[in-house]
Amino acid sequence: MAEKIDTPVRRTRSDGERSRAAILAAASKLATVDGLEGLTIGRLADHIGMSKSGLYAHFGSKEELQLATIASAEEVFDADVVDPAEDAVPGLDRLQTLADRFMVHVESGVFPGGCFFASVLGEFDTRPGRVRDRVAAFMGGWTRRLREQAVEAQARGQIDEGEDIDQLVFEIQSSLLLANTLWVLTESPEVFERARTAISGRIARSRRN
Amino acid sequence: MAEKIDTPVRRTRSDGERSRAAILAAASKLATVDGLEGLTIGRLADHIGMSKSGLYAHFGSKEELQLATIASAEEVFDADVVDPAEDAVPGLDRLQTLADRFMVHVESGVFPGGCFFASVLGEFDTRPGRVRDRVAAFMGGWTRRLREQAVEAQARGQIDEGEDIDQLVFEIQSSLLLANTLWVLTESPEVFERARTAISGRIARSRRN
Repeated sequence: MAEKIDTPVRRTRSDGERSRAAILAAASKLATVDGLEGLTIGRLADHIGMSKSGLYAHFGSKEELQLATIASAEEVFDADVVDPAEDAVPGLDRLQTLADRFMVHVESGVFPGGCFFASVLGEFDTRPGRVRDRVAAFMGGWTRRLREQAVEAQARGQIDEGEDIDQLVFEIQSSLLLANTLWVLTESPEVFERARTAISGRIARSRRN
Repeated sequence: MAEKIDTPVRRTRSDGERSRAAILAAASKLATVDGLEGLTIGRLADHIGMSKSGLYAHFGSKEELQLATIASAEEVFDADVVDPAEDAVPGLDRLQTLADRFMVHVESGVFPGGCFFASVLGEFDTRPGRVRDRVAAFMGGWTRRLREQAVEAQARGQIDEGEDIDQLVFEIQSSLLLANTLWVLTESPEVFERARTAISGRIARSRRN
């Protein structure tokens, strides 16, 4: 899947910003293949044809490069998943839109290794430090985002008042995670249908408890 | 969690075998922390206090060490998960036992990074080669094992004949995967309760379709 790595950066920016953004776009794609720990300034410099000294001028250290790469991946996630869901009605509609957009984002191949955060979490879950904290914070924020919409759906009467919201969110997230894992492994779009069926079935049951 | 890495090997063997088994037990634990790609003969030699030349005599190459480490992790998985399920009645009982034993295995901390195969899959899913093929084969085998018991449960009338077996297996696996991921991240046993609730609820629904 290496050919997917060199797709261009998405947004137009000033020259200095574009340079940094282009570096980080390449870095975030590479990190889902080689790992974020494998993302050394030397390897990235080789990959994008830039000097190591030029990269040091941008980032200073490997950890700063890793943290900047995470921030860049989060911008992509927001543009692909979070921002479009803002157009949906709060509650059940927005909850389902977040889940759908996540799958569209993964299937798009913007990151060759699937969800950037799932990929990096598997790598850093046992390595205490700023990178792990940053990825864990993202995961917590994503869970809260889904939860907020489930709570809103309950307040609007779209979900039964007896429903255990945290259980519902766990089950939605589990389908999204397995779909991501199996997609990277098999590249079979069927996995997204499985997840959509699981999620819509689970939400339907939360309405008739 | 590094203190968990040096727990002793489980079975008694002849001296030559024990030595190899002890090396691989340490290697498989280390691989769930540093990654299987980070498992070089030099790093493992440092970790277990053995000479690099001694390790080369055992394994010859990094790839052979990686493949032997995977085989060792599979032995642990079989002893923890697969073998105990053989005592359960085929069908629904064995399906639930496989899921339960998987969670006991993860929570036991035998691998500091949770499920060895989930950990290594996240690392190798984008790296074609013998290691990826071996891990993908394990994943396929585990899925088939769950599926066989679901099919048997359907044949025994424990699951409705209209149930989509592959969908049921997807949903069981998704709960197990998220529980593993969240356990490594949070070390909160609550995640296993969430997964048990999801799986028992899903199976209950498959009985009254």
